[in-house]
Amino acid sequence: MKIVGLGGGIGAARLWRALLERVDPAEVTIVVNTGDDLWIHGLRVCPDLDTVLYSLTDRQDPVRGWGLRGETWRCMERLRELGSEGWFNLGDADLATHLFRTGALRAGRRLSEVTADLAAALGLRARLLPMSDDEVETHVLTDAGALHYQEFYIARAASDVVAAVEYRGAQAATPAPGVLEAITAADRIIIGPSNPVASIGPILAVPGVRDAIKAATAPVIAVTPIVSGIRITDAGEQRRADSRAALLAALGLPHTARAAAELFTDLLDAFVLDLADRGEPRRQVSGADVLLAHTLVDDHGRFPPGPIREEDLVDLLLGYTNVDFWLEQE
Amino acid sequence: MKIVGLGGGIGAARLWRALLERVDPAEVTIVVNTGDDLWIHGLRVCPDLDTVLYSLTDRQDPVRGWGLRGETWRCMERLRELGSEGWFNLGDADLATHLFRTGALRAGRRLSEVTADLAAALGLRARLLPMSDDEVETHVLTDAGALHYQEFYIARAASDVVAAVEYRGAQAATPAPGVLEAITAADRIIIGPSNPVASIGPILAVPGVRDAIKAATAPVIAVTPIVSGIRITDAGEQRRADSRAALLAALGLPHTARAAAELFTDLLDAFVLDLADRGEPRRQVSGADVLLAHTLVDDHGRFPPGPIREEDLVDLLLGYTNVDFWLEQE
Repeated sequence: MKIVGLGGGIGAARLWRALLERVDPAEVTIVVNTGDDLWIHGLRVCPDLDTVLYSLTDRQDPVRGWGLRGETWRCMERLRELGSEGWFNLGDADLATHLFRTGALRAGRRLSEVTADLAAALGLRARLLPMSDDEVETHVLTDAGALHYQEFYIARAASDVVAAVEYRGAQAATPAPGVLEAITAADRIIIGPSNPVASIGPILAVPGVRDAIKAATAPVIAVTPIVSGIRITDAGEQRRADSRAALLAALGLPHTARAAAELFTDLLDAFVLDLADRGEPRRQVSGADVLLAHTLVDDHGRFPPGPIREEDLVDLLLGYTNVDFWLEQE
Repeated sequence: MKIVGLGGGIGAARLWRALLERVDPAEVTIVVNTGDDLWIHGLRVCPDLDTVLYSLTDRQDPVRGWGLRGETWRCMERLRELGSEGWFNLGDADLATHLFRTGALRAGRRLSEVTADLAAALGLRARLLPMSDDEVETHVLTDAGALHYQEFYIARAASDVVAAVEYRGAQAATPAPGVLEAITAADRIIIGPSNPVASIGPILAVPGVRDAIKAATAPVIAVTPIVSGIRITDAGEQRRADSRAALLAALGLPHTARAAAELFTDLLDAFVLDLADRGEPRRQVSGADVLLAHTLVDDHGRFPPGPIREEDLVDLLLGYTNVDFWLEQE
């Protein structure tokens, strides 16, 4: 079964990890947002690609959720001593990824090629594709001005009211080699539980991607990035929620799973709501089946144990074929 | 007394350090070779500027002679794991300097401006100038092809026979702001004990610099980078000697202090030979006085103690006025 996963934030990376424990990695293509990518200190940094790379090769730090386990911060400490803006943290070991990538890009290689090299060097067996080799940057318009998404998210802790979101460069971008082909050939397309505006939106904004998904024969299933029924206790998760809420608000939408789903209803066959939100009325996402599962995966790609098969998100994603399947389960 | 020092390798940096212990740093301008600079992994690295920066602010590693004391190598280790060329070592803390510089250059700042920012951040009170804000690269022609000087010197351990030396970009370069003015206003111009071909040659190859030194009213004194009478026991010093010998040979010159001096005889009022080479015939450097001193300074800018005043290199450099002064001492 050929699977295409879209999205590469922390939440999506956890789901891909759970998925890869169950299927042949050679059958999986992960298409990752690069709208968060930035040039900083002369380096090209690709947060979502790296989160997927590190997470799927068991290198990510479980406490921070991003970056490498056992990281040190000598370079950052000295950079701050030099009076440099220190808002974007770069670990000493993590820097190697950015140096490797930047050197290759400066030598004329494409981001998709460098990403393949990094994936091979780290032992990732699934195929990892940036959404595009062209530079696309997500900017948000706030009272503090137009900010690169990373500046909004990290430097300003996602605390600004966002009036508008712009995917700069998206209209002129082309999908990276393999993206459209993978979508067309897929048996299953999964939209990961990533920020729908900051992480999924840019992928769909690259001309050709949305149309390819619409035209694909595979069922398209999105997993909710929003679980209203479980209280957030982790600071990182809170910031991710704040960012989702601010960006959905910029589109006039509430911070709910249904609102997130509405952004993709033209694409979806099914939408997975978390069991904790089972109280929300089903079949409210226009044109899509609403499925139920535990959607919160831990860093190791594990789910809380559940009593019934339908609670296993991966089973659900792999087994879903059409509305009848779900009705049978119910 | 306004002093201009030319050169920025390890040997010159030691001399500048000794000098700055004796004179007002505000009166000293150090003009540094940038022909060794390179783009690597997307970063702009300036070995000679950094050696002077670190040495004069007491940060340099005393064992390696280059880089920062107490350095760690996490980034390099991972870079090698990723399969990247690892011949150019970048320490974790040192990387901050390169990130700071590269980010500023990419943002449109000039190398001389970034260098001033770095010097200020590190507390260097002397004025530090790159020879030029334009990129000049020293390449050597060897049997292994044309190599960037750093590749010859570091990756290949200065072991190739060199047929020719080229200062790429030098003819189109202009001196950095302040270089010519400092030379013209100087009371004393000192050519440091750096590789005459790799470290002094590029500075003099920037159009205008050599003429400004010729036209300057200040005495011009070079300190020998070559001491034949003292056996080399240090691997780093041996490599520096091998490089000097290979580059002098490319010009048809032997590896001797006199040969080094001959490269600058159009500029020199005096040339300082090491006391260990006192047996060499004096007054053999055409048109220049030959002075004698201990020239090998340690990492702390200290000299071996000597019985007579003329053995103090800094005294000699500061006190020299003309040939009569030297004759009086003798």
